[in-house]
Amino acid sequence: MELLKGKIKKEGIVLSENVLKVDSFINHQMDPILMKEIGKEFANRFRNENITKVLTIESSGIAPAIMTGLELEVPVIFARKRKSLTLTSDLYTSTVYSYTKKETNEITVSQKYILEGDNVLIIDDFLANGQAAIGLAEIVEKAKAKVSGIGILIEKSFQPGAEDIISKGYRLESLARIKSLHNEDVQFVD
Amino acid sequence: MELLKGKIKKEGIVLSENVLKVDSFINHQMDPILMKEIGKEFANRFRNENITKVLTIESSGIAPAIMTGLELEVPVIFARKRKSLTLTSDLYTSTVYSYTKKETNEITVSQKYILEGDNVLIIDDFLANGQAAIGLAEIVEKAKAKVSGIGILIEKSFQPGAEDIISKGYRLESLARIKSLHNEDVQFVD
Repeated sequence: MELLKGKIKKEGIVLSENVLKVDSFINHQMDPILMKEIGKEFANRFRNENITKVLTIESSGIAPAIMTGLELEVPVIFARKRKSLTLTSDLYTSTVYSYTKKETNEITVSQKYILEGDNVLIIDDFLANGQAAIGLAEIVEKAKAKVSGIGILIEKSFQPGAEDIISKGYRLESLARIKSLHNEDVQFVD
Repeated sequence: MELLKGKIKKEGIVLSENVLKVDSFINHQMDPILMKEIGKEFANRFRNENITKVLTIESSGIAPAIMTGLELEVPVIFARKRKSLTLTSDLYTSTVYSYTKKETNEITVSQKYILEGDNVLIIDDFLANGQAAIGLAEIVEKAKAKVSGIGILIEKSFQPGAEDIISKGYRLESLARIKSLHNEDVQFVD
């Protein structure tokens, strides 16, 4: 998606060979017009999947997910992150390790909101090691619903998440695919 | 706002005299078409305030805030919550006590994103004791920007937050104002 790639080129800050900071338009300050266009793009790419729910994870996934749900006219659910669970009845849970924060979170979704027969589109901002996306997919599978696709804003293609998701048989659509962050420069996959 | 009040009447669950659960359309599962209408409503109510930024707090404020920012065509910032701060340089911070969760969080916003001269519209899902909204307002004041208004989806008018905000001189617009939750019934302020 050229609009997103242009914004990354212009405003993204390369902090290291692995870390791209996009907190001026995605992660902390958000550009609502860009988010709207991202929602349209995901809706177009997954239009033929008969999506019934969009699932994301708090907090940075919420804005692109709500715009995608708006275009597809389906409900949007955000999974909550917790350090540890006090109560698990009526919740689907999965464990997600964050390499960035070096911590393990449990992610939870109420069993009321993902049902057998649902076609679920998973949306998240970044794909690096794939932990969050795979954790969300596990929740969908536990609900006996279908993972109809995974939509990512920024894929760091040099990390293993994308390959891992595809090897599990899921359809992956990433709007910007980054080949490398060498020399403080963002190189996209052609 | 009749659309929101109707949805609360239909889908809200009164858990106690103080607690209204709206996690089927606001807090966990979200209704994107409702959120879009909420964004339009806030944009209309605050159109004359020359808003330059929308500020909210993760996670439930993000969906209505991004829709409001889309209508007003301004950036949206979400404050982050943390248990304790490791690094405070280049961040504005404030302390917020949650009566629901019985815990204190620090909320933070990067100093890059709220500037002197900004007219900031604060958006949040619930107003009860007013801690989150007042914490966000403190951050705006620290940045020497103006709190141009506070927009709330659901105000529990029988709790002190609304009065507290108005007594501080801020303009408050709540889309649904709840008078009481007695006998498992939602009564709105006329």
